[in-house]
Amino acid sequence: MTDDFGAFVPGERFRVEGKPGGPLSGLSFAAKDLFDVAGHVTGGGNPDWARVNPVPTRHAWAVQRLLDAGATLIGKTITDEVSLGILGENPFDGTARNPRAPGRVPGGSSSGSAVAVAAGLCDTALGTDTGGSVRVPASFCALYGIRPTHGRIKVTGMMSQAPTSDTTGWFARDAETFASVAAVMLGEAIPAELPRQLVIADDAFAVADTAASVALQPLVERLGRVIGTISHERMASQGLVGWANAQRTIQPSEAWETFKDWIDRVNPRMQFSVARNLAAAASITPAERARAQSVRDAARARMRALLPPGTILCQPTTPFPAPLCGQALSVLDPLRERITRLACHGGLTGVPQVVIPGSTVDGLPVGLSIIGGWGSDATLVAVARALAN
Amino acid sequence: MTDDFGAFVPGERFRVEGKPGGPLSGLSFAAKDLFDVAGHVTGGGNPDWARVNPVPTRHAWAVQRLLDAGATLIGKTITDEVSLGILGENPFDGTARNPRAPGRVPGGSSSGSAVAVAAGLCDTALGTDTGGSVRVPASFCALYGIRPTHGRIKVTGMMSQAPTSDTTGWFARDAETFASVAAVMLGEAIPAELPRQLVIADDAFAVADTAASVALQPLVERLGRVIGTISHERMASQGLVGWANAQRTIQPSEAWETFKDWIDRVNPRMQFSVARNLAAAASITPAERARAQSVRDAARARMRALLPPGTILCQPTTPFPAPLCGQALSVLDPLRERITRLACHGGLTGVPQVVIPGSTVDGLPVGLSIIGGWGSDATLVAVARALAN
Repeated sequence: MTDDFGAFVPGERFRVEGKPGGPLSGLSFAAKDLFDVAGHVTGGGNPDWARVNPVPTRHAWAVQRLLDAGATLIGKTITDEVSLGILGENPFDGTARNPRAPGRVPGGSSSGSAVAVAAGLCDTALGTDTGGSVRVPASFCALYGIRPTHGRIKVTGMMSQAPTSDTTGWFARDAETFASVAAVMLGEAIPAELPRQLVIADDAFAVADTAASVALQPLVERLGRVIGTISHERMASQGLVGWANAQRTIQPSEAWETFKDWIDRVNPRMQFSVARNLAAAASITPAERARAQSVRDAARARMRALLPPGTILCQPTTPFPAPLCGQALSVLDPLRERITRLACHGGLTGVPQVVIPGSTVDGLPVGLSIIGGWGSDATLVAVARALAN
Repeated sequence: MTDDFGAFVPGERFRVEGKPGGPLSGLSFAAKDLFDVAGHVTGGGNPDWARVNPVPTRHAWAVQRLLDAGATLIGKTITDEVSLGILGENPFDGTARNPRAPGRVPGGSSSGSAVAVAAGLCDTALGTDTGGSVRVPASFCALYGIRPTHGRIKVTGMMSQAPTSDTTGWFARDAETFASVAAVMLGEAIPAELPRQLVIADDAFAVADTAASVALQPLVERLGRVIGTISHERMASQGLVGWANAQRTIQPSEAWETFKDWIDRVNPRMQFSVARNLAAAASITPAERARAQSVRDAARARMRALLPPGTILCQPTTPFPAPLCGQALSVLDPLRERITRLACHGGLTGVPQVVIPGSTVDGLPVGLSIIGGWGSDATLVAVARALAN
């Protein structure tokens, strides 16, 4: 029996052939268990979600898009419970094993999709990213990964968490595959022309462990040579902690709105940490949400100013490589908080972000991220491809 | 296959024979899955408790006591998760089915023990009562049940929840069996002499549904004839809501102390409501605990004044019969709050309480409770027996 690294939801390996003759013919893909696949329950990483929701009769938009382009679906992958998690430890479906960092978490919530691609079980895989759920596992598993511009990719048939932050993304091991999938998903050719201005986000590098920042320097330097002009800026002039706090207000309060009726009706089983965070979200006040919204407005204005066409920004995707599996909450909670400081701007401002692999700390992967203005998704993919050549 | 009403933990029906020739020879019993039985994991109603705790090598004190007296142990019964629940709905081990009120909850947390006795699967069963966990299922399943004086029965080998409220109790279908077990557990003969003064707790009857209060009247009148003098009093001069709030401060904050290291280490799976309540308990402040303690001190003084030797009090055990299974949290939470108003004084003041079956509302059982001063356990059992003759 082939080792599948626990990437797939138990019982959810199958084949749905892609249409012949498409641009992705010959490629295989997997879908996070948040995407509808006709005839398969959308489990959402939680047995009480799977239990009470009907089996979908249609594929999610993103699944159909890849099938139509010729890729073959090979199964559904494990997710953190109802996408609420950034480390990928799921006590119900199991924790997918990180092939690039044994004994360490895969990252989440798109944990199984990242592991399936990293282990070579498929060429690409669909994930979702609300607060870092593609970017973090891409960083921890040495993959290309994208969080597209918010609203760019249709979320029809994708289980929602926090609608103003939810996006559909994907992973690949190599830049060519990543670009081929991107062209299909974005419906746009990957351009030859690259941005000419690189902003290094000093405050984001300051959040990372020194070892991670140092490890990323060779990649940053290559990126600088590919792009041309380099400048240094603070991404969040008032501090990334303020942005993180705003995202940690908006996202959970929207998640509570999304899940509260289900919770009330079903009283679902959950990991303590997931239930705790949702229960805390239930008591976020309108005044707190309003304050967070004003931080969001300012962050969006800041990103517009920082990222005119032709300019991209780079930062460490995560402050460190994957933490060890099975650590105590009191150890993990502060790590989650630091991860959020580097990932919060995605949900908060909606800008696209691409993760580029290639750096390691003591042999453990950590990804470099490039970020562009709204709608610059294809340009970011082009940069990733150029950097690989 | 005999229907066991889902009373037992899956895989935990077995036999440990009692010593020959004891006072309980010929009787069978079950133990709530909070009591250690040598060679069987103490599951505590939660898979992540069972998973990380060693298999005990000795029986709990209460289990050994019944075995030594000749009773035969036939298995371990389902409990609400880590005894945090009053309705008996357990999504992990399953919800035991109430034989006396089909489609309705059994009551908890000693749900399986109550169901096993009510269904005639054994003669008696051990439960625990911290905030009502013997009394409520006794009421819902038409059983005799006791919450002994706090500290009266050794809790060695019993999984703790909130130490200043935890007690070991038991159930029986008939008063004679109930009294036989009581004599063994209390180490004291059940006296012939009965109290002479009955206090009817008007404020407790006011908490109950009118239908339940009316249904209990014939039993109250028989009790009055057995005891002699009757008076009416308010149990809590400042109101039962204040007592309930104090118990809902002290008990959860102790439970958090009991479980916080396990939660931190394991991040256990739990029902949302259990995790939510523990998470809320984590933020109870020392000042809130101190205020609750002063309410507890006053409640204890009030009980001492109300219940001199020779006086007992009666009240409805629960405000209503067993609610329907599977209702929404928003329906159940207010019901739980009302149940606590009638059950809080047990944990808060430590006085013993015996549940007497015999009344029904629309065919659904609801129990009458009698309460005495500290150490009057055997006297309460004597009253229950006298009432049955």
